[in-house]
Amino acid sequence: MGPMPENSAPTLATDALPQPRDGIAGAAPYGAPQLEVEHALNVNENPYGPSPELAASIGRAAADAAVGLNRYPDREALDLRTDLGEYLAAESGIAAPPLESVWAANGSNEIMHQLLLAFGGPGRTALGFTPHYSMYPEYARDTYTRWVTAERGPEPEFALTAEAVTAAIAAHEPNIVVLTSPNNPTGTALTLDVVEAAAAALAPSRGLLVVDEAYGEFRRDGVPSALTLLDRHPNIVVTRTMSKAFALAGARLGYLVAHPAIVDAVRVVRLPYHLSAVTQAVARAALAHREELLGKVALLRSERDALAEHLVARGHDVAPSDANFILFRTFSDRDAVFEALLDRSVLVRAVGPAGWLRVSIGTPENNTAFRTALEEADPR
Amino acid sequence: MGPMPENSAPTLATDALPQPRDGIAGAAPYGAPQLEVEHALNVNENPYGPSPELAASIGRAAADAAVGLNRYPDREALDLRTDLGEYLAAESGIAAPPLESVWAANGSNEIMHQLLLAFGGPGRTALGFTPHYSMYPEYARDTYTRWVTAERGPEPEFALTAEAVTAAIAAHEPNIVVLTSPNNPTGTALTLDVVEAAAAALAPSRGLLVVDEAYGEFRRDGVPSALTLLDRHPNIVVTRTMSKAFALAGARLGYLVAHPAIVDAVRVVRLPYHLSAVTQAVARAALAHREELLGKVALLRSERDALAEHLVARGHDVAPSDANFILFRTFSDRDAVFEALLDRSVLVRAVGPAGWLRVSIGTPENNTAFRTALEEADPR
Repeated sequence: MGPMPENSAPTLATDALPQPRDGIAGAAPYGAPQLEVEHALNVNENPYGPSPELAASIGRAAADAAVGLNRYPDREALDLRTDLGEYLAAESGIAAPPLESVWAANGSNEIMHQLLLAFGGPGRTALGFTPHYSMYPEYARDTYTRWVTAERGPEPEFALTAEAVTAAIAAHEPNIVVLTSPNNPTGTALTLDVVEAAAAALAPSRGLLVVDEAYGEFRRDGVPSALTLLDRHPNIVVTRTMSKAFALAGARLGYLVAHPAIVDAVRVVRLPYHLSAVTQAVARAALAHREELLGKVALLRSERDALAEHLVARGHDVAPSDANFILFRTFSDRDAVFEALLDRSVLVRAVGPAGWLRVSIGTPENNTAFRTALEEADPR
Repeated sequence: MGPMPENSAPTLATDALPQPRDGIAGAAPYGAPQLEVEHALNVNENPYGPSPELAASIGRAAADAAVGLNRYPDREALDLRTDLGEYLAAESGIAAPPLESVWAANGSNEIMHQLLLAFGGPGRTALGFTPHYSMYPEYARDTYTRWVTAERGPEPEFALTAEAVTAAIAAHEPNIVVLTSPNNPTGTALTLDVVEAAAAALAPSRGLLVVDEAYGEFRRDGVPSALTLLDRHPNIVVTRTMSKAFALAGARLGYLVAHPAIVDAVRVVRLPYHLSAVTQAVARAALAHREELLGKVALLRSERDALAEHLVARGHDVAPSDANFILFRTFSDRDAVFEALLDRSVLVRAVGPAGWLRVSIGTPENNTAFRTALEEADPR
């Protein structure tokens, strides 16, 4: 068995059936394979589920919400947005952003979709830097936004500099730039001078800078968040998710912080009542238990650093990671290594440049299993 | 106080901030006002919340799901889609549709958005019949689909005939037609000959017919569902929601039934993991308690018919309703009546043609309060 196909293309009947629009017919839905394996290290999930206390608290929150489920939810999610702002202030050392600057949706997928619905569109261009998260071109396709790319710096650093970002903006004149920090799949965090250079280069044309910090909580000590720039650069949006550090991938809660005018534009294109009463209640319960959830982040960071050291010691090229995953170059054919790892119940992801694999940081047991499997799957 | 504005337009700064695309800047987000009133009869909610047993069951389902919330949800929602298919078979007397024909999303809002993402777009046209649900033009705007309309027949019937639908299709040559049965805000159900005429008229150009049955469960005895036509017309999509009959507006669960090729196209544009693990669990819990939930539907239907008779007896023009609301013409200025009702803690909705108001069917207590308030608010 080689690397699993991301998804097989559906078979569309071609006779009397309605025809999807250009770009959709015959395309395959996005998504990593969902396999049952002992060590699932393929989609950067947090390996630690909620404690029994938190699971019970989430159940109580849902039961409380259930009593009023016949009514539509709070369309503006006011309480949740307030809680998210308070959390970010504590996490990033910024003043709590006002409610009007915070927005939430069903995963950062929906956040990005809403941003491109409001600020992209026909005749508009969005710029990203490869290798990047595989969904970005799909958000662009779905919103008729042209997606263009520039390359990150050479492996294994995959760095982005202020000069490179400024030059790419000058070359492509994008309406939207997406910077990811830490970047998926490379794990690379950006220094603030890079983000500021992009914001400044976009300001004259009133371009939007999206800083995707889905993995922000895993960044190493001393690496700042772009949240600290929002006061000075009103064209920056910082997006976050509760899927990773908060171990809440199953609950679907992404959010953003930006100037209220940007939030207002997103409010126009959001589907009314997009965020269920239960989702709002579950997210608030998790935020109330953040000490517990974020306690595991410290462990995952130290596991990541230890695994990176181990891979370097083995002789692999390793991208410096501020995220909960590591991109490394295999000694032999990556597809063969992927397959050999899967034979040993370890599922990783074949993304990034040819020859590289991405492994999510799991529990110490997962990570040990990965190390052991790699000895056989990719002997030095 | 007059009728509440649907939402005030946000104030967008006009200097250095990123500019939303055309059609978004300065627009107001959609949504009825969310006011705390004793008798909320404005958004066609089911007045009956879950029983304590069901609320507890929903809480348990959420607590069970919580244990695995660190993992992404089942991206294909296989169990939920199976349950929905079985429910529809029981409800509409059709054979259970295969899993591949059923799709679910966060409310029928997201279902419609996904359908227009896949089948609409620049250069494509969607046709609806006025008066219709206020969100349809927004789905079209957000997907760059041209929205055109034809008028339903004269009040108070607001009927649609096969001839009128066929003529409108010939005139506009739409790629998509949206028929709503029962229609919001008029309550009008369609006979199947109208739906079949539309499907047949669209077939040569491979157009898509969306039959929005959000209020389907409230239809009167003998009124069939367009679900019964799916076998013969592969270009029909029937959309449903758990918001109304299932009293689950707060949980956000809409769904559709269609040919698997149509579902496949929607799967291409859906955001991955769009449906949270908790949403899937809550919806399944509600489906398992459907006897209880649908038991209230019978009461709401009889309350609706009694209220319609009462309004007719008062001398109002009343649109025949197969839904959980009634559209009626006021004797005096509708905005003044709206205001006078609100002064008496009864909130209705000023939608539909000038001079008409829509009132949702509440509990017998709500409905009595409405009748009493109307005596004073709109004396004969």
